[in-house]
Amino acid sequence: MHTQTRRLALQLRHPFKLSYGTTTVRENVLFQVSAGTHSGVGEAAVVPYYGETAERVLQHLSAPALAEALSGDPLLLGDALDRLPADMTPAARAAVDIALHDLWGKHLGHPLYRLWGLNPAHIPVSSFTIAMADDEDGYREQVREARDHSLIKLKLGSGDWRTDLRYVQMARQETRARLCVDANGGWSADEALAIIPALTELEIVFIEQPVARDDLAGWRTLHDSLPVARPPLIADETVQGVESVLPLAGLVDGINIKLAKCGGLRPAMQMIQLARACSMKVLIGCMIESTVAVAAAAHLAALADFADLDGNLLVSNDPYRGIEMRKGQIALTERPGLGIVPAPEQ
Amino acid sequence: MHTQTRRLALQLRHPFKLSYGTTTVRENVLFQVSAGTHSGVGEAAVVPYYGETAERVLQHLSAPALAEALSGDPLLLGDALDRLPADMTPAARAAVDIALHDLWGKHLGHPLYRLWGLNPAHIPVSSFTIAMADDEDGYREQVREARDHSLIKLKLGSGDWRTDLRYVQMARQETRARLCVDANGGWSADEALAIIPALTELEIVFIEQPVARDDLAGWRTLHDSLPVARPPLIADETVQGVESVLPLAGLVDGINIKLAKCGGLRPAMQMIQLARACSMKVLIGCMIESTVAVAAAAHLAALADFADLDGNLLVSNDPYRGIEMRKGQIALTERPGLGIVPAPEQ
Repeated sequence: MHTQTRRLALQLRHPFKLSYGTTTVRENVLFQVSAGTHSGVGEAAVVPYYGETAERVLQHLSAPALAEALSGDPLLLGDALDRLPADMTPAARAAVDIALHDLWGKHLGHPLYRLWGLNPAHIPVSSFTIAMADDEDGYREQVREARDHSLIKLKLGSGDWRTDLRYVQMARQETRARLCVDANGGWSADEALAIIPALTELEIVFIEQPVARDDLAGWRTLHDSLPVARPPLIADETVQGVESVLPLAGLVDGINIKLAKCGGLRPAMQMIQLARACSMKVLIGCMIESTVAVAAAAHLAALADFADLDGNLLVSNDPYRGIEMRKGQIALTERPGLGIVPAPEQ
Repeated sequence: MHTQTRRLALQLRHPFKLSYGTTTVRENVLFQVSAGTHSGVGEAAVVPYYGETAERVLQHLSAPALAEALSGDPLLLGDALDRLPADMTPAARAAVDIALHDLWGKHLGHPLYRLWGLNPAHIPVSSFTIAMADDEDGYREQVREARDHSLIKLKLGSGDWRTDLRYVQMARQETRARLCVDANGGWSADEALAIIPALTELEIVFIEQPVARDDLAGWRTLHDSLPVARPPLIADETVQGVESVLPLAGLVDGINIKLAKCGGLRPAMQMIQLARACSMKVLIGCMIESTVAVAAAAHLAALADFADLDGNLLVSNDPYRGIEMRKGQIALTERPGLGIVPAPEQ
């Protein structure tokens, strides 16, 4: 197998404000692997707050140890994944995992969802994300403009739960769409206990990462203190790779699986199996990514309860196309592998 | 999809003695499902000591609710499996699951191991089983006759652990093959603590079901009292379906997954994922079954540490062929699905 790596500077349609900071460009890395007449592509989302850098990802993806690991038969997908160097970061590993799956699917002549026996009609409606804004009228306008989406995710974590709640109430006034919220770990357990009953009243579909990443005591408090009739509390930053799932059994109601966090499709699939065995809900999420990584997650999302796969919609220079989204519903094609093709030159 | 069900009376080459009793014939049930030009076949192993009867299995496999569940597209494997009636016994469910996988693989044009990205060269050497015999010279002779097998499983559970140990020592004197043992739950925890150090000395590869099925306290005692340097202690009767794996974390060193216990390939795959997340070894076993069910397990065995897939070798009237075993090493073909074909008329 031959490999090729290139930087991908993704231009964001709108500056993206999080509790972590604001960004206007995101530098990801594309990874291509070829064997015979087929090639597969993968993407590493370089997420600064997970400690990834483009340089480190590029270094991993051009390492001789990786080339050595990819010297075998592309049909033996499991063997190739087993041989990946142990020191790869999750994002770099995800890029290789996605590219190998794409290549494998092309060799077998079927799209990935088909090779997993899945029905793409089961992909849940994907949420559309709205960031907080200082300008309240502008915020209301943003919510109204999202009228084509049936599920809207509100980013919270302003630092004051009462402000957070006020923004949710504003959104509720402006749209009939279903709403979910992502606190990005911005609440203490006590603050979460104060706001969650109000969010339950507002029929929020799910609540992501109410407490800080490492606040397991906070998760325990929420689990023990809140009524069972509540929106599912979904761990995002608290859950990373396969090994992080079982310790959360009985602590969280669900997990947000992202390929760039866990290292690709194979570990994501294992996490889904573990989550199901622990009666957890599954949300398939993404980073700010092109169609490459979002398509990979979309194939898997047929197994999920919720999807948050709008990463490519936030980007103005997506180098690939091949998934369509209408009112949040993703459609996949019958093309083999990821089912994506390069976008026409712009 | 059209379905067809028939009884399969398997003639055993040798009467088979277990701690449960002796058998010379085993009545299984074959299940066929057809769509378009393809058909898939599955098998229900009717295991009396698991409370299955041929009548009950036949009833489940010809139920209108099952026909209704199988009315969809055979490519949508997951949907069909999700729709199976909840009240099916594990063996009946396994027959349908195997047949649907076979049909799905034929529609996609690839063998199952390929559709899972697995390398059939990783299928572990399968053990060959030798039952206890009252005649000690005859027992030694049986062990010598198994010289073509590199891994021999000794069935124990005579009711006296000293007798069990003597049989293992006899076998050790007669062969250079690797040996594993299956106590079939025949020891108390104290008896197991007495015999296991001696079995460790004899370099037994693994020890199956040392204590009784429901003796979780016994498993706990063994786990806490035995040195880590011991043959892995593998649960067989103690583990049944998907839900039984996680409660055994930290209690057992591995699990014996059998399709007829857990309900087929999809739950077996999930059990493997769970076992790996709990650092358990995986043994893929079988019942007394034809090539149909053994081939299905063999495809999955590429993910296992150990295999015990000699069920079809014990049968003189196997209605299918398509897996070859040489010195315990199973070879699969490139044919799609299970890769098996009807045996020529006898």
